[in-house]
Amino acid sequence: MFHELTEFDDWFAERRRAHEFRVNRVPLDSLSGWSMDPETFAVRHDSGRFFAVDGLEVHTDHGYDRTWSQPIIDQPEIGILGILTKRFDGVPHFLMQAKMEPGNIDLLELSPTVQATRSNYTQVHKGKSVAYLEYFRDPSHGHILSDTLQSEQGSWFLHKRNRNMIVETTADVPVLDDFCWLTYDQIGELLTRDNVVNMDSRTVLAGYPFTEPGKPCWYVPPRAAHPPRTGTVNRAAPRDITEVLSWFADMKSRYRLTRSRIPLCDAKGWICTSESVTHESNRYFSVIGVDVEAGSREVSSWSQPVLAPADRGVAAFLVSRRDDELRVLAQAHTQAGTLDVLEIAPTVQCTPSNYDHLPSDKQPAFLDHVLRASREHVLLDVVHSEEGGRFYHAQNRYLLVEAPDDFPADVHPDFSWITVPQIAEIARYGNHVNVEARSLLACLRFLR
Amino acid sequence: MFHELTEFDDWFAERRRAHEFRVNRVPLDSLSGWSMDPETFAVRHDSGRFFAVDGLEVHTDHGYDRTWSQPIIDQPEIGILGILTKRFDGVPHFLMQAKMEPGNIDLLELSPTVQATRSNYTQVHKGKSVAYLEYFRDPSHGHILSDTLQSEQGSWFLHKRNRNMIVETTADVPVLDDFCWLTYDQIGELLTRDNVVNMDSRTVLAGYPFTEPGKPCWYVPPRAAHPPRTGTVNRAAPRDITEVLSWFADMKSRYRLTRSRIPLCDAKGWICTSESVTHESNRYFSVIGVDVEAGSREVSSWSQPVLAPADRGVAAFLVSRRDDELRVLAQAHTQAGTLDVLEIAPTVQCTPSNYDHLPSDKQPAFLDHVLRASREHVLLDVVHSEEGGRFYHAQNRYLLVEAPDDFPADVHPDFSWITVPQIAEIARYGNHVNVEARSLLACLRFLR
Repeated sequence: MFHELTEFDDWFAERRRAHEFRVNRVPLDSLSGWSMDPETFAVRHDSGRFFAVDGLEVHTDHGYDRTWSQPIIDQPEIGILGILTKRFDGVPHFLMQAKMEPGNIDLLELSPTVQATRSNYTQVHKGKSVAYLEYFRDPSHGHILSDTLQSEQGSWFLHKRNRNMIVETTADVPVLDDFCWLTYDQIGELLTRDNVVNMDSRTVLAGYPFTEPGKPCWYVPPRAAHPPRTGTVNRAAPRDITEVLSWFADMKSRYRLTRSRIPLCDAKGWICTSESVTHESNRYFSVIGVDVEAGSREVSSWSQPVLAPADRGVAAFLVSRRDDELRVLAQAHTQAGTLDVLEIAPTVQCTPSNYDHLPSDKQPAFLDHVLRASREHVLLDVVHSEEGGRFYHAQNRYLLVEAPDDFPADVHPDFSWITVPQIAEIARYGNHVNVEARSLLACLRFLR
Repeated sequence: MFHELTEFDDWFAERRRAHEFRVNRVPLDSLSGWSMDPETFAVRHDSGRFFAVDGLEVHTDHGYDRTWSQPIIDQPEIGILGILTKRFDGVPHFLMQAKMEPGNIDLLELSPTVQATRSNYTQVHKGKSVAYLEYFRDPSHGHILSDTLQSEQGSWFLHKRNRNMIVETTADVPVLDDFCWLTYDQIGELLTRDNVVNMDSRTVLAGYPFTEPGKPCWYVPPRAAHPPRTGTVNRAAPRDITEVLSWFADMKSRYRLTRSRIPLCDAKGWICTSESVTHESNRYFSVIGVDVEAGSREVSSWSQPVLAPADRGVAAFLVSRRDDELRVLAQAHTQAGTLDVLEIAPTVQCTPSNYDHLPSDKQPAFLDHVLRASREHVLLDVVHSEEGGRFYHAQNRYLLVEAPDDFPADVHPDFSWITVPQIAEIARYGNHVNVEARSLLACLRFLR
């Protein structure tokens, strides 16, 4: 345990030195253990497990683009993302792991106690067994604080999800080399630093309960960390959770989303070669290959495809305060890989440069609001990365921006003001709140 | 309004006399407005809307059958099932409709205020407009008490769902000819009668809130209508809702369900003719055609395919009491058309005669328990029909059976004890609780 975060910094630097990692870009058709289909250019693992990159055609009547095709990662397996928590002197601590992923900016980030695909923990690649897995596979080892199947990046994954778990234990837990206990406040502090707390940690932490375990009612006001301010007025009347769910049902009834798998080589506008898959405009993302050598993973070296975004994205909630309640402007958002038409997303979620060739009326709603907010309205401005095991240098600028006083009272029906406890409650049910919104929810929950 | 249910009986009999309905069986290939594909035998409406009957191949590792193919109803449109409620002298009343459907046993049953497919209310077939629709299309007409997209019969529909809404109004509501106001208790009484309250009403009523609107916390004990009894002990420790959701996440991670559409004529074991589609064993169901003549519907005559089950089914919850809490033994259940692997179903849900050729170890779990329960353990035993607009004489025997004192403490992991308020809370989120379980939930909620 660390009394000061500087001790954590020393430990983390030491962990970085303890392992030697090398990540080299290689052509897609030369990945060891993977095969590229010579006709379709789809990339699959030779075991048939892990994941594959294939083509998808999308039709929807929701959002800017109505019909398009793209490469998509197909990973039907449900993995476990689990954080073990334990009280020391009554203070909850979280067991976090310094873990290397090939797509991370500085390779090492803080991951959950357990971050394992089903192929990992059933040991398809015959590596080391997964530490602490027993706490999440057998509930008798602890008390479950949250456990939900949660979706991941809908722009890049087809129907992907992982089981997000927080388990509290009272057992003696040996702390292995790459692991450390961090307090609630220490995690909150680290969430304000760029590229330290990885995506898997953020989505799991978003599920940390508002109230003490065992208490039945979750509808408590958010933490006093967000005291009421004078000067910010609130516009739309607050919705109760029934009305929020009604808005969600209405949105899902209103829009359609149909997908069909296509050969990757038939994805219109995409250029497939033995080297990589890229868009002819150089926008969106590429699929590339990497060779990895590492000392701290289940296996010491491997190759894999990764998805490399063309540019940094933005994920931002507009927030407003009313009395002692913090609310966010949620968006009903449809993406290529969304399981069920749409999920609740941040107010703004996009890669701005994907739209820079379009006129201003085709720009994502509220993008200007969040990028041009005056400094005193910006509650959080931090860069976090998406999963480095699938995405290469995939960074998003995460923002919490207070809505200005003159913010319009009427917003497009795709948007709704939701309180933080409401979105936390809804997120307990899978496929309701998307991963970018959950990252911001984790920040809202843990920040002082 | 009716002071006594005998007044309702007179009104309902009068409604039956006021309309003349005829339903005649006709060959599938002679349905006016519908076409049977000469090669695949699939049946579609000429407008491309409403619904279609096609083939589905199913692979799952959950349940008795692992791979099979079957006809399935494909109805991607989301309709509205809405009940309007209003307080008279403080007592909640529900506006119910005497509605004819061709598949109903006695043609007329009690349906919700609004029961309309999207094709209906956008008037694809150019009939009468849908009465009271404005209360459900524009929320400013009332206060929403519940609003969820809910699944329907997973054995017969692919991913079908409807929007289930209850809206409270204070407006003056003119009562049209086929409509009547019924109290909570009157509906409870009618739910104990065979084939009166239709499926659409039951699933909507299941969403009626436990507490007064506006109050935030739903975790209240069930109605005092189920007082604690001595003599019934309870076995498994009660789970809090986090543990119930964890069980649900675990079940979804554990099993797989993949489907592919196939030509109907390729469904193995099914015999397709221009007359009907039936299984070679005469088990399961048939697809047949009907011509309908009616005076009280949006259009006065029409033809359509319907799905006719081969026999009556059973849907039963084993229930147990602890202190003043009623619990049901829920089953994680996978069906051909389930959207997302599985949903929460009754303890027993099957058509027993589909299994009568199988040895006892292949019989559905707990079927014997519910069918052979001694009379004092049977809290409810009533026959209700499934949607008469799609299913022909599709009856299920709905049972609530108290678990005997010697009921085993350890049940298969597919099953979990859940309190009635927990299942009601979970049902507020779509695709969690299946339609048969919601029918029983409606009975649990409204029965005295």
